Formats: sequence, structure tokens, C-alpha cells
Amino acid sequence: MLRDLQLSQVYKLIEPGPVVLLTTAQKECPNVMAMSWHMMMEFNPPLIGCIVSRANHSFAALSKTRECVIAIPTVELASQVVKIGNMTGSEVNKFEALGLASKPAAKVAAPLLTDCYANLECKVTDTTFVRKYNLFVLEVVKAWIDHAKKGPKTIHHKGFGTFAVDGESLRLRSKKP
Amino acid sequence: MLRDLQLSQVYKLIEPGPVVLLTTAQKECPNVMAMSWHMMMEFNPPLIGCIVSRANHSFAALSKTRECVIAIPTVELASQVVKIGNMTGSEVNKFEALGLASKPAAKVAAPLLTDCYANLECKVTDTTFVRKYNLFVLEVVKAWIDHAKKGPKTIHHKGFGTFAVDGESLRLRSKKP
Repeated sequence: MLRDLQLSQVYKLIEPGPVVLLTTAQKECPNVMAMSWHMMMEFNPPLIGCIVSRANHSFAALSKTRECVIAIPTVELASQVVKIGNMTGSEVNKFEALGLASKPAAKVAAPLLTDCYANLECKVTDTTFVRKYNLFVLEVVKAWIDHAKKGPKTIHHKGFGTFAVDGESLRLRSKKP
Repeated sequence: MLRDLQLSQVYKLIEPGPVVLLTTAQKECPNVMAMSWHMMMEFNPPLIGCIVSRANHSFAALSKTRECVIAIPTVELASQVVKIGNMTGSEVNKFEALGLASKPAAKVAAPLLTDCYANLECKVTDTTFVRKYNLFVLEVVKAWIDHAKKGPKTIHHKGFGTFAVDGESLRLRSKKP
């Protein structure tokens, strides 16, 4: 069950550097890619920078529609994530091929991935750096979280399908967000 | 013992999204900050994008010297990382205050952190986006790794001193770097 997440809390999901899934929708046709080259750029409203290669089928949809969803999968979805990364939307509808559960977002045309523990609806706010670096600046305009997924363990890509899975949680005293 | 790491392998260290330490040196005075807002931007030569707030003492040194080292700490250094994040170089020499082990880098004036399992010597190659986003583009010009640190577990910041520590390693078949 996806619930509202305050935008001020979004950085806590992205800052740890999990693999994410990026959905787009162009001409009613949804697509999804796996992504690890992303970072927070501002707390609130949350800005996320990400690199989407021109070689990705999603590049055109993101450039044209200027909208996407960043969904955060947990380790249970790792094999789906790898399949998503190794297929191309130019040849297959990944949603159908992989039976991905989705539903409409509130503020963007790209779909939410309901098996993921968080979904961030995003608008592209700056394309100045796309030509040189394929760098898109996204503003998160609505965020969802699934509290039913307890102790969510995200995955961190180390290349060629090797991932570090979240392990122990460490709490130290710090004043810093 | 720090050994050469091929530049083509650097992305495997940064892509998983660990907390890193960024060292600078201005007027012979070294400084270090903790950082989590960074991402890979290109494989080889490796480009890293990072956000360094103007509120950080390191901002001026990075802007002026256009050099830094990105060091990757493992979980054993977590309490040092938090202390580094909660001190400011404008008031204390963090190297002295915390007894940080360091040695000179090969290609930049900023020091290597010898207790970290990897060190990336970086030059600032693009400051176009600093004014608007505090975003620096870094090129890694030399990389070091400590193979004596077996099974290094990095830490991923989730806000206010809470970290996910690397747990299980997962290997799935994938063609994608």
C-alpha cells in the first residue's frame, strides 16, 4: 500500500545510493530502465541529478516528455532489476515481458512500480547538461512509500550483476541531515 | 598498502553509493569532509559529479585549488566519518584533532587517507554548474586501492548518523557494466 511521503524526507532514500528503476511513458507506451548513476542535489524541493545514456531507449522518452518515476526496489526484486537492465525497450515491452506490477502516478504520465518500496514522481527541470554529460536534473513533485515493506533492504550495484545488499543498520550520534 | 587501481575500474567503487571522504589542501593546510551526494558521470576517464555546499569549509579550497582526493572508508571508520562530518575545518585541523593517517598523493596536493580502502586523486574539470547547484565535475587522474583490506564493507548514509552497512554480496548474471 503506497502512502504519501513528505518531500523533505526523499533525500534519505536516494542518498544511500541504491539501484533505482526509472519509468517513462511516451505515446502511451511505458518503459523502465535500471539506474545507478544518480545523486541528490538539493533537499527540498528535492532535486536529483541522474545520467541517462543516449544508448538507453529511455533517453528519448525522458527528453521528450520531461517526466519520469524513480522507483526504489528492495533485494527481493534483484533478479527483475537485472532483467530490466539487460533488455531494451526498443525491442520489448518490459512491463508485459516481466509482468511488472504498476499503477498510474498522480502528477506524471510515467507509471508507479507497486512492488517497489518507494516511488518518486519527477519532472525534468533542467536539461542544460544533457548535451555534454547526459545529465538530467529532476525535481521530485510527489513521493510514495510502502510502509508494509518492513526493514527494506536495497541493493547497490558494483558492476556486471554484482550487488552489495543492505546489511546491518548503524546509528551514530550526528547533527547532520 | 595502497596499490594502483586501473582507472577503468573506478566506477565499481563509486556506483554503489558509499559515503566518501573528500580531502583538499589549501595553503599547505589539509581539510576533509564527509560526502554522500556524488555519482559517476563517465566510465573512463572516470568522471564523478559531486555537490559540495558553500556552507562547507572545503568549498573554497576545492574551488580555488581545483584538486581533491575522494577516499572511501569502510565501516571500521564510521565513527571517524561522523566526527569529520560534525566538525568544521574553519575551526579545527581535523587531521590533528582526529589523528587521521595520511600521506602525499601522486598527482594532487590533497592528501590520501591511508586508513581508507580506496583513494581517488581528482582534478576539477568543469565548474559550469557550481554557481547554480554547487555541482563540481571531477576527473579521477589516479586511483589507489588497499588489497590488504579484505571484504571491505562500505557505509551508506540515510540521514543523521544512520547508515546501512554493506551486507550480503549478490551475484546475478548480467552483461551490463
